Amino acid sequence: MSIIAPLLLALQAPVTPPAPHEPAAQDWRTIPDDELLVMQLSGDRTVVIRLAAALAPAHVANIRRLAAAGWWNGESVYRVQENWVAQWGDATEQKRLPPGVAGSVVPEFEIARFAPAQRMARVDTHSAVSGVTADGWPVASDGAGHAWLTHCYGMVGVARDAAPTSGTGAELFTPIGQSARRLDRNYAVVGRVIEGMQYLSALPRGPAPMGVHDAVKDRAAIVSVTLAGALPAADRPRFQYRAADNPRFAALIRRRENPPAPTIGSGGADVCEVPLDVRRTP
Amino acid sequence: MSIIAPLLLALQAPVTPPAPHEPAAQDWRTIPDDELLVMQLSGDRTVVIRLAAALAPAHVANIRRLAAAGWWNGESVYRVQENWVAQWGDATEQKRLPPGVAGSVVPEFEIARFAPAQRMARVDTHSAVSGVTADGWPVASDGAGHAWLTHCYGMVGVARDAAPTSGTGAELFTPIGQSARRLDRNYAVVGRVIEGMQYLSALPRGPAPMGVHDAVKDRAAIVSVTLAGALPAADRPRFQYRAADNPRFAALIRRRENPPAPTIGSGGADVCEVPLDVRRTP
Repeated sequence: MSIIAPLLLALQAPVTPPAPHEPAAQDWRTIPDDELLVMQLSGDRTVVIRLAAALAPAHVANIRRLAAAGWWNGESVYRVQENWVAQWGDATEQKRLPPGVAGSVVPEFEIARFAPAQRMARVDTHSAVSGVTADGWPVASDGAGHAWLTHCYGMVGVARDAAPTSGTGAELFTPIGQSARRLDRNYAVVGRVIEGMQYLSALPRGPAPMGVHDAVKDRAAIVSVTLAGALPAADRPRFQYRAADNPRFAALIRRRENPPAPTIGSGGADVCEVPLDVRRTP
Repeated sequence: MSIIAPLLLALQAPVTPPAPHEPAAQDWRTIPDDELLVMQLSGDRTVVIRLAAALAPAHVANIRRLAAAGWWNGESVYRVQENWVAQWGDATEQKRLPPGVAGSVVPEFEIARFAPAQRMARVDTHSAVSGVTADGWPVASDGAGHAWLTHCYGMVGVARDAAPTSGTGAELFTPIGQSARRLDRNYAVVGRVIEGMQYLSALPRGPAPMGVHDAVKDRAAIVSVTLAGALPAADRPRFQYRAADNPRFAALIRRRENPPAPTIGSGGADVCEVPLDVRRTP
């Protein structure tokens, strides 16, 4: 009976096979603690950023040192420009970088040594080849050896002055409207907001030029920015990303390109519209 | 002297010729009063919508009647979903339509009798042909006689139930994140927010499924929605759009596709990234 009963049960409630575009259990991969940046805003608002450690290593190294030094603690989100970006860091631009943080970083506007054909699931609409890397990052490529992370909604970029080497990672921004693709290959992309994006996208827009909040009281105050690994184990958020190196993710892209009726596809999808799922580790 | 003096002045301060992509005076065209919908939210927040009267005439006719009947007055923006849409109208879905408003409207998911080659400035990235109509609307086409308004950031679409004819224009929405192109050809697009978009995009996201604000106090209250022509002359906003049927607009698109250094273009631009300028009439 102990064997037959479960079999009967299975017959009574037949298992629906997952749709081809649904992730399998093994598609969920852990994001390491040192690739999770936890930004605590006032009012108990938590923003979690996944860092692109493998694709923008020099900037991510700087960002880790800035977090360790408490650089952002007490700073603010001081710029919120409608249909463009929210930006945070030191609004005065006068604060000195902590010891050990590089004041000049190699411009990682492109991804070094990237072989798109081997490493990404392709999306076929933009005039540049675009797709999603095995580990879930949106990428475009010119098909001639150049590849770069794309400025999609929620991606995190490095603000800088005119000099290409002037971005350190101390000032960061994220697109809050239509993707900011015209920044591609001109600004370094270092991560992606994976939780709490609404605490940046729904901030009141700044009234000054470029969306700046001149009045300190109007800025969203940053309580702290910390790597997850530096938090007490009990407070440490744990996340998984959906890997793209499998036929289920390829099916997801095909479904976006040619969605089921009544939606009418265009035979293509924008790389910024492909869902890059991330979840709290169950 | 009266003739020579101005000539000297002109020599002293030489006129810089406008860049090829800058609009000429004649490129600014008046938007008629009955194509401007003025939505007053509580807290002195004004949202102005340009109606696509020529491209979605049946829905716009309904919307005009709804505004004349005061349908939206006292209603709310009751849904704000992160990186998706803000939606407004009657949250109860129980309110009866005013007399004269059609309860079933022909689905204007596409633009009838549209000849893209003649009527739009082309943008060349999406797999569907896309571009901007002479009078400044973003459009995509399959090149085989079908054309449609695109769900770019800030465009206004008609919410509906499952039945394609169930949208009346009483419930409206606008994309507040990455453009919602997968709604193209499946929902009617009837206009575009041309002023005050931040009063919709920066609203707090709703906590219920699909971003709904179940609590009435959390919804943005609509004081009134009125056609500009129904307002007292002194309160009537006047707007102009930048026409696209000229070489200056074509140059603007080329500049977006191949921007000046240091920006690196991809040889293409997304139709939702082409600026569709509108201004208060000077």
